[in-house]
Amino acid sequence: MNTMISDKMLNMVKNSSAIRAMFEEGAKMAARYGADNVYDFSLGNPNVAAPAQVKDAILDLVEKEDPVRLHGYMNNAGFEEVREAIAQSLNGRFGTKFTQKNILMTVGAAGGLNVILKTLLNPGDEVITFSPYFGEYRSYVDNFEGKLVEISPDTETFQPNLEELRQKITPKTKALIVNTPNNPTGVVYSEETVKKLAQILNEKQRELGTAIYLISDEPYRELVYDGVEVPYLPNYYDNTIVGYSYSKSLSLPGERIGYLVMPDTLTDADTIISAAGVANRILGFVNAPGLQQLAVARCLDARTDVEYYNRNRKLLYETLTGLGFSCIKPEGAFYLFVKSPIADEKAFCEKAKEYHLLIVPGSSFGCPGFVRLAYCVKYETIQRSIPAFEKLAADYFGGKH
Amino acid sequence: MNTMISDKMLNMVKNSSAIRAMFEEGAKMAARYGADNVYDFSLGNPNVAAPAQVKDAILDLVEKEDPVRLHGYMNNAGFEEVREAIAQSLNGRFGTKFTQKNILMTVGAAGGLNVILKTLLNPGDEVITFSPYFGEYRSYVDNFEGKLVEISPDTETFQPNLEELRQKITPKTKALIVNTPNNPTGVVYSEETVKKLAQILNEKQRELGTAIYLISDEPYRELVYDGVEVPYLPNYYDNTIVGYSYSKSLSLPGERIGYLVMPDTLTDADTIISAAGVANRILGFVNAPGLQQLAVARCLDARTDVEYYNRNRKLLYETLTGLGFSCIKPEGAFYLFVKSPIADEKAFCEKAKEYHLLIVPGSSFGCPGFVRLAYCVKYETIQRSIPAFEKLAADYFGGKH
Repeated sequence: MNTMISDKMLNMVKNSSAIRAMFEEGAKMAARYGADNVYDFSLGNPNVAAPAQVKDAILDLVEKEDPVRLHGYMNNAGFEEVREAIAQSLNGRFGTKFTQKNILMTVGAAGGLNVILKTLLNPGDEVITFSPYFGEYRSYVDNFEGKLVEISPDTETFQPNLEELRQKITPKTKALIVNTPNNPTGVVYSEETVKKLAQILNEKQRELGTAIYLISDEPYRELVYDGVEVPYLPNYYDNTIVGYSYSKSLSLPGERIGYLVMPDTLTDADTIISAAGVANRILGFVNAPGLQQLAVARCLDARTDVEYYNRNRKLLYETLTGLGFSCIKPEGAFYLFVKSPIADEKAFCEKAKEYHLLIVPGSSFGCPGFVRLAYCVKYETIQRSIPAFEKLAADYFGGKH
Repeated sequence: MNTMISDKMLNMVKNSSAIRAMFEEGAKMAARYGADNVYDFSLGNPNVAAPAQVKDAILDLVEKEDPVRLHGYMNNAGFEEVREAIAQSLNGRFGTKFTQKNILMTVGAAGGLNVILKTLLNPGDEVITFSPYFGEYRSYVDNFEGKLVEISPDTETFQPNLEELRQKITPKTKALIVNTPNNPTGVVYSEETVKKLAQILNEKQRELGTAIYLISDEPYRELVYDGVEVPYLPNYYDNTIVGYSYSKSLSLPGERIGYLVMPDTLTDADTIISAAGVANRILGFVNAPGLQQLAVARCLDARTDVEYYNRNRKLLYETLTGLGFSCIKPEGAFYLFVKSPIADEKAFCEKAKEYHLLIVPGSSFGCPGFVRLAYCVKYETIQRSIPAFEKLAADYFGGKH
């Protein structure tokens, strides 16, 4: 008898996420060598505690709210007052005109992306993204029999290649996923870039007579440095759908809480909004976790400690470039995307592991030849890792360090 | 330009869940007529508060746990100690030999069912279920291009039609979903029934040379009356996978917390366990909500107030049968499945709505001619609804009441 499981899943298991595999390997290595002797830069799991408001909100809700309401079912789209509070908060920040109708609470951004792709995709539809990109996009698009189309990276700047985008849009293009601030590069798209992007999408919509949805995956929106502005894409392109998460902004990744914004300006807005609510239900999310919905609604002005990440960014960037490694300085998120000193970056990651340095191959992001380091770790971890990076550099650049 | 959304979803929106539509209509009616004047029996949303241990557990966790761990990512399958605690609890109750490896924490039972169906199904695979059944099974199977095969109901007893099951198993049969205690009938399968069921599945596996997975969807396991026993299916059939939820047992439906049990006795157990972890990730769940995982692990011996539901069951059953309606007395769950006095049960539901009684057509469960009433409401709601049921009965059975 052949194996009984899904052929697709069998294939997935074989090629499963290098990031997650490393996360689990890191835990094992920490158990063997001691947590202080393993330098795990593999996963975007914030080491900054959730802001104090989150704790206060949860304690207060659990103490005072009627548990039947607090823990009960609500509308599949989420508690109305939570969605309205988020809509008003966005309106205040970005000058938009959302109401609760435009907000759907989701099981993190990953849940939100699956909901909107389920809503939009027919089998064979194309979804474009710029390489390097969060590798899970490929799986999410594949969940609905869509086809992920990659735009090749500009490995000097990691800004989006807009001319190649223009060429790769076809009548089957249903959506473009962008992620700014970007995982894995830390790049933020400037207003000028966003305007050019919108212009191309609008031209192509007119030319092809289709709607092309711009899905803005923005869990890192609040994590920017040096006063960089992140343009709010719905203000630049009518067919923008935003996927947001509190995983990084409030350090709640394990709680699975985020939302989709589906503006009234979308082509077929009402149908999309209704269908996304149904998709949220039938994909098995049903609704975003209730207690967390009510908690984040009380923390819309809370901010994570961006300076913590900034300090990490500076130390790791200066350490690595000082050792001879090359990478662009990130403007947002909490990743460095470093050029591998050898073409086979997986071999480089294996070598790094010998020094207990856990880093992720760029192949996981559609961009071989580079590696990703997540610097959402403790500052002390970076400090302690420096001798290991020195040894690693010596292996490739000679003994000068 | 045609509508841009998925054809499948467009169809789904048109035929969206009557249960959910009624839930939302109920909220509107409550706003218009006053909550006390609307008798909403539409949704399985428990009106019994979560046990006090849940509150204590959440408060203690939020006060004392390191927030980085409490709210952070963990293994996609869930916190190891939570899974081990659940495994040991099951072993104590049912004499099984599970370890944490066999347990995968899920976003409710709905999340768990989607994870296991994603893991198992190739397009065109058949999944059998006994009618009447929770209507979402159809959507869940369709999410992965599977085909739901219904076994027709025995409308006298609502026990499973095992002979028809035997006939409908084909080489494409990948799984059978059972739900005992049952939504919508409240029926519990006896040990004798389970043994016969296992015998048929074993015979068919041998005959066809396939594995047929028995998926036991058991959110209502703890809700049984009159001392009825619910056999633990993994003890009767090796290829059993259990989907559990704390939605009803701890009154946490909005928190989305449950688990899958994948025993070592499964055909291809290790592959299924690995693949289910990947499926949990790529479907966008990533992991079950962290705080709720840690909370339920401290409440494994907590019990909801079954007597509350039992009192409701008796009052509603006696009221309805006293008025001339006919239904079997449920042994578990919190639903009555009542024969519609007219063949078109949707018209009956519309008539009921005129008296502010919200009940769900049996068509939603693959069993027209019946209606479902969820009695997880307040006792006072049932008391207050009696005059409305009297008027409804008078419309069909004459003026004697």
